[in-house]
Amino acid sequence: VVHRLCIVGLGLMGGAVGLAVRKAGAATRVTGVADQPATIEKAKAIGAVDEATLDLAAAVREADFIVLATPVRFIPEIARAVLLHVRDDAVLTDIGSSKVSVVAAVDDLIAKSKKPVFFVGSHPISGSEKSGIECAGEVVLAGATCAITPTTTTNNDAYRRVEEFWKALGMKTVRLSPDDHDATLARSSHLPHLISYLLLNAQTPRSLQLSGPGLRDTTRLAGSDPALWVDIVAQNAGELTRVFKDFGQEIVALAEELEALTRPGTPGAESARERLFRTMADAHTRYEAHYLGAGKRRTKAEVSGDEDGSEEEDEKLE
Amino acid sequence: VVHRLCIVGLGLMGGAVGLAVRKAGAATRVTGVADQPATIEKAKAIGAVDEATLDLAAAVREADFIVLATPVRFIPEIARAVLLHVRDDAVLTDIGSSKVSVVAAVDDLIAKSKKPVFFVGSHPISGSEKSGIECAGEVVLAGATCAITPTTTTNNDAYRRVEEFWKALGMKTVRLSPDDHDATLARSSHLPHLISYLLLNAQTPRSLQLSGPGLRDTTRLAGSDPALWVDIVAQNAGELTRVFKDFGQEIVALAEELEALTRPGTPGAESARERLFRTMADAHTRYEAHYLGAGKRRTKAEVSGDEDGSEEEDEKLE
Repeated sequence: VVHRLCIVGLGLMGGAVGLAVRKAGAATRVTGVADQPATIEKAKAIGAVDEATLDLAAAVREADFIVLATPVRFIPEIARAVLLHVRDDAVLTDIGSSKVSVVAAVDDLIAKSKKPVFFVGSHPISGSEKSGIECAGEVVLAGATCAITPTTTTNNDAYRRVEEFWKALGMKTVRLSPDDHDATLARSSHLPHLISYLLLNAQTPRSLQLSGPGLRDTTRLAGSDPALWVDIVAQNAGELTRVFKDFGQEIVALAEELEALTRPGTPGAESARERLFRTMADAHTRYEAHYLGAGKRRTKAEVSGDEDGSEEEDEKLE
Repeated sequence: VVHRLCIVGLGLMGGAVGLAVRKAGAATRVTGVADQPATIEKAKAIGAVDEATLDLAAAVREADFIVLATPVRFIPEIARAVLLHVRDDAVLTDIGSSKVSVVAAVDDLIAKSKKPVFFVGSHPISGSEKSGIECAGEVVLAGATCAITPTTTTNNDAYRRVEEFWKALGMKTVRLSPDDHDATLARSSHLPHLISYLLLNAQTPRSLQLSGPGLRDTTRLAGSDPALWVDIVAQNAGELTRVFKDFGQEIVALAEELEALTRPGTPGAESARERLFRTMADAHTRYEAHYLGAGKRRTKAEVSGDEDGSEEEDEKLE
């Protein structure tokens, strides 16, 4: 059980964690650390913390569970400062969208500090294109999935504490290695983010004028903070390169089918149309299975309060 | 003013038009034509029509304004049937997402029929990934944009009647040629639809499990009916080929930048990061300008009931 929780970084996600923890009663006290007085006031005003401070050292000293909730590029620097003041046996986690780089950096800092504290990487897979604690209430953690990314050296008790923490917020947890996390999120999150930016850049003033809810939703992620996302993308550049090369091939193949369709009545047009329909129908089937089928089952489990509906997997620590 | 409106095809969009017309009182009577008795019952149940029938001839005979609201591939066939029974001086429009092919086909049928009736193509740019009249209530026409696509031979009075019809539903109207429409919608609608299908096909079972609201929204359009969309795409294959080749180039360029980022510390990585950030920041600026800036202005105009807020342009008929 978490007694004193410290959230370092009170932005969109730090604020969302604070709100969820206080709503669930998952900690006896929630202390937030911010770098600006205005953020402290906002955090208190929306009820994301019991107290908030600019004094990292004092806040960390009291905490037995610490969530690093800054943009990924600041995590090593913040972890270094935290380690100067942290209690023995404290558990640290984070909320970063890329894990290989973050986990390696923090594990390395802890090894060098020789402190008896434990870090387990986390990534609650929810969010918003918006930034700042004032929008924290729009992030839905309950019912969403949290990836937890232990390594070969992760302490098992610390892993359990981190897992219990996210489950107490109503999240489903999935355990996987930092490498698997980054390879997977390259497809499910980083690819759609980058494609959203490109889709909006492909528009003209006229095409924006003649656009509707379809473009709005497919480009919503282009509202995400470029300064935050360029780091997430850079930290996962290897996996993303592979994913983008594959995606580029799919685009080229589709462009060829579209070109064949400009010659209607030819055998090439007929088979291109068949392949194009198959591509669309396959995606449509996946859409229905994942968003309509799975969504309905998930809702039932939530309604019945079925906490064993968690989709946690029984992977071994590698 | 529309007295007797006939909507041929009571699917998602035909139903949405009926609901909006009845809500706005934009016709004295709304008659729907469907091809199944069950659809007639649903249309009456949700209040999308005053009456509905399977008898196209009888419904068309009474109407002075006819909306062709079937999937695009059926429009020529339906127009042919409508022309056998239509009154003199009736005005026809449609709601198809591609216009060059539809407008050419219907204009040709009217010319051959030698009937004194008028067709002006329309495309109300709103919708949903869902299908069927049971979801018609989710489509928002008021405040959305309707493209109207006259040709060199379009009758000016008929154009005005079609424009007034959509404006009476609270839509902003934009006048442009069928060619310009298809070139523009290739970017703003057909590209994002196809990309949504490809994004979902790029997922693995694991990446779907580890996905959140970002993937859900960027792939919402993959819920669209493939049988409907393969025709829209095929009818606009020429423009889409150009757009996809350009988009493929952007993907390839981004993959190269991502690859350069896998060699951190090199000058190539630094400049790649700079270009990547610029790409993301440009899109973010467009996002804010279009969805936050313009959206706020639009809302104010709506709140104040400013009907002159219409963004109609003064293009000449070419």
